[in-house]
Amino acid sequence: MNGAHRALEAAHLAGVEVCFANPGTTEMEMVAALDSVNGIRSVLCLFEGVATGAADGYGRMTGKPAMTLVHLGPGFANGIANLHNARRAGTPIVNMIGDHPTWHLSSDSPLTSDIESLASPVSKWVRRSESAGKLVQDTVEAVAVAQSEPSGVASLIISQDAAWDEAPDGLPTVSSPSMGLDEESIQSASRMLKEKGERGALLLGSRALRPSLEAAAQIQSATGCQVFVDTFMARLEGGAGLPGFDAIPYFPEQAIDKLSGLQGIAVVGSRPPVAFFGYKHLNRSSLLPDDCESQVVCGTGVDSGPSLAAIAQELGAPDYAGVPSNPHPAEPDGELNVLSLGQALASVLPEGAIVVNEAATSSLGWVVHSSKAAPHDVLNLTGGAIGQGIPCAVGAAIAAPDRPVVALQADGSGMYTVQGLWSMAREQLNVTVLVCANQAYRILQTELERSGNHDPGPAAMSMTNLSSPELDWTKLAAGMGLPAVRVTRADELVSALKRSLSEPGPSLIEALL
Amino acid sequence: MNGAHRALEAAHLAGVEVCFANPGTTEMEMVAALDSVNGIRSVLCLFEGVATGAADGYGRMTGKPAMTLVHLGPGFANGIANLHNARRAGTPIVNMIGDHPTWHLSSDSPLTSDIESLASPVSKWVRRSESAGKLVQDTVEAVAVAQSEPSGVASLIISQDAAWDEAPDGLPTVSSPSMGLDEESIQSASRMLKEKGERGALLLGSRALRPSLEAAAQIQSATGCQVFVDTFMARLEGGAGLPGFDAIPYFPEQAIDKLSGLQGIAVVGSRPPVAFFGYKHLNRSSLLPDDCESQVVCGTGVDSGPSLAAIAQELGAPDYAGVPSNPHPAEPDGELNVLSLGQALASVLPEGAIVVNEAATSSLGWVVHSSKAAPHDVLNLTGGAIGQGIPCAVGAAIAAPDRPVVALQADGSGMYTVQGLWSMAREQLNVTVLVCANQAYRILQTELERSGNHDPGPAAMSMTNLSSPELDWTKLAAGMGLPAVRVTRADELVSALKRSLSEPGPSLIEALL
Repeated sequence: MNGAHRALEAAHLAGVEVCFANPGTTEMEMVAALDSVNGIRSVLCLFEGVATGAADGYGRMTGKPAMTLVHLGPGFANGIANLHNARRAGTPIVNMIGDHPTWHLSSDSPLTSDIESLASPVSKWVRRSESAGKLVQDTVEAVAVAQSEPSGVASLIISQDAAWDEAPDGLPTVSSPSMGLDEESIQSASRMLKEKGERGALLLGSRALRPSLEAAAQIQSATGCQVFVDTFMARLEGGAGLPGFDAIPYFPEQAIDKLSGLQGIAVVGSRPPVAFFGYKHLNRSSLLPDDCESQVVCGTGVDSGPSLAAIAQELGAPDYAGVPSNPHPAEPDGELNVLSLGQALASVLPEGAIVVNEAATSSLGWVVHSSKAAPHDVLNLTGGAIGQGIPCAVGAAIAAPDRPVVALQADGSGMYTVQGLWSMAREQLNVTVLVCANQAYRILQTELERSGNHDPGPAAMSMTNLSSPELDWTKLAAGMGLPAVRVTRADELVSALKRSLSEPGPSLIEALL
Repeated sequence: MNGAHRALEAAHLAGVEVCFANPGTTEMEMVAALDSVNGIRSVLCLFEGVATGAADGYGRMTGKPAMTLVHLGPGFANGIANLHNARRAGTPIVNMIGDHPTWHLSSDSPLTSDIESLASPVSKWVRRSESAGKLVQDTVEAVAVAQSEPSGVASLIISQDAAWDEAPDGLPTVSSPSMGLDEESIQSASRMLKEKGERGALLLGSRALRPSLEAAAQIQSATGCQVFVDTFMARLEGGAGLPGFDAIPYFPEQAIDKLSGLQGIAVVGSRPPVAFFGYKHLNRSSLLPDDCESQVVCGTGVDSGPSLAAIAQELGAPDYAGVPSNPHPAEPDGELNVLSLGQALASVLPEGAIVVNEAATSSLGWVVHSSKAAPHDVLNLTGGAIGQGIPCAVGAAIAAPDRPVVALQADGSGMYTVQGLWSMAREQLNVTVLVCANQAYRILQTELERSGNHDPGPAAMSMTNLSSPELDWTKLAAGMGLPAVRVTRADELVSALKRSLSEPGPSLIEALL
């Protein structure tokens, strides 16, 4: 049995169940092996950015790594942007990157490039397997590394002769220990929160699910501290009847204002907050007051549940008391704008839905209304590399086939990885793609203004404008096999969402803003 | 005047006339400056792979660098695959990559990554500008480096404070000397070709235009040598009445067979030929006989015209005698297949057209018939990183607005950078996109067979099959503002091509194979 076959067997034994792929000639042994390893579902993506973004969505929902299978340096490079988002989310992913056979590399044939240099910026671990035995061993190690806290991206470069040579019998196994509790930082954070009271804050990052949210509410009850979540959470549970906490605002002026007066912050599953971009007029990176003390209990990619439970226990916090469940927002009618769009989604969202939010400025209404929607998960754009939404929705839908997925999608970023619609159709995934069609890079219009250009010229404006020609998302969707509808009023959107959410399979709604 | 403004002025003074862009917040000063620098046309691309591929097409047609303007590491990463092709083509390109202000980098904010590590594999030169003065100077150097032989990709990382700070007055200028002749290698190559006669060969690579082709024909007359061109030429003139030379076959068995018996090869604008991929059953990289001597006169990215003229002179070759101009191929009718498709294109191609060939297996008929088509240029997929065709056609059309451009495009690779259609519509470029819709990665079906998998299972087959769901290219085109038609017979294709080629602006023809 060759190295490719044994490596896939070993990966499956270690827990890998899905492979998002766009292979080429150097991956033919891996492709052929897909049929003889039961239990790894292979999903073809028409662009590698879809494959890596889907692996990110899958990993955020399952906590387990999906595999990607990509073709040499350029194929991998097409997946880097979404791996950047995965890295910032702490998502476990195993990339299998085919390369030329060892003896062919030195000929520098046309598709040869320095894959290590491309992979390092987005990977916590990069390895090259140059023999069949090593490939099997390295595959198991890649799965373990990806899952071990802090979880992240493992990239394995596979010399093609390692895939076609015979591999020794026997499959190594693997364990991925969780990080364990940092007792000392738990005690200092607890002391600090108790001492600072309302001048103290707890910041949650990475994935914050119900146990973490409830523990945070207990800590808040015990100390009176403020609780925040990161601006862009990898995964956040929310909705009616769940504890909801303010996110740190995106614009640094608002964030600095919100965090002013803080004397101490305990950080769980994240890092002390910094500005997304550096602005000339602010000339600073940190969002915290200068005299605010930071205590990092655990970083990105670490399960924050146990640490938060331990802090709550250390503080002798009262049991979680629950929060009142507000009625869902009313179904809007009338004009369609960013507020009514978000209200429409929040009003009809089914319990257990997954919302992949890459709507940028168009997500405002959703942010306003989501706390009153039925309980759900939100996956956000963690690394700022646009083109995450559609792929991430593909992966989330495969991870959670019983839960409806809504891709709340800006049009500009949606075009980056529009090819993901085809994989939704091929796999008949239960995804509603809600395109917020404002026909602009609206955030850049704001940033152009913020950078002091109050009267930009036509060349500058044309860099932020998508209206000439107008994109027609219903045609793009139909071109890739998705039913699609365009809506221009809020009540039309409500009806379209209800229809799409009640039917299996994918569909697209273009909401003209 | 700030660094961004001065840098654009300096770039324009150095000869830059086009900027293919998808900027973000860190590039706002560059965007604002676009309006105050006359003579740099800015072209918005909805994905960075379109921007870099367009710069490649532009550089191949003009010999001058276009500028790309991209956003941080992830934005640049999206452009890597087509920069890989540009690197293999020796195309001059200047990438302007925005990064955070110097003082913000250490905060490792979400969009931060190691841009140098990403840029190095595709760049002959990478630099970071951390002050306004340095930015202006580095921009000029980037243009010079990109154009200096061997020409290639220069990547400049711009700290945002270098763009917004005031820059000193005065614009540095630049010269990009050509490499000059390597007299010694010209003499040895001449001696070798004379001595080996028909056992000798001349190999042309990179860009081979009429002067090079005519000199090669003279050398052939003088020595009886064989003449080949690279499998994938960056740019090759061809057609009726022009000297035409066989390309080295793609599959190594055929290439080894074709080159068997050679005792010496003189390489001009290329490297000694190696197999595209390494195969287990061949176990070798070189395509040349073991005892064949190689003489590299000049490498990729060097203008081969002067070297070839010098060899012809050294050999005392007779004047170029011309070749008979065969009549154009007849217009086919009946079944549409890869042969009649290529024949149809060759039969109607206007003189001076530019054909961007990313049709892979579907280009067979074009390869058979193109030598009888009207004189034209062909731009090929030099680095094997698919997704080059549509972007390259954008750049070629901007470089040569008076020449019709045909993107001869496979469907699988076309989907990689399908967003390029929108830029064609926005800029109203005179491009006919001819999609060869075989609904498969056909080359992979062949390679799966070649790797010994004669009876692939359903999972393996599904990795090579694009038919479920079927792509509808007419809808994809309409979604991005292009008129489009689907054809199923050869005579329909002839009519559609005539119509499209006689009208200005872009259109798409989907040829169902």
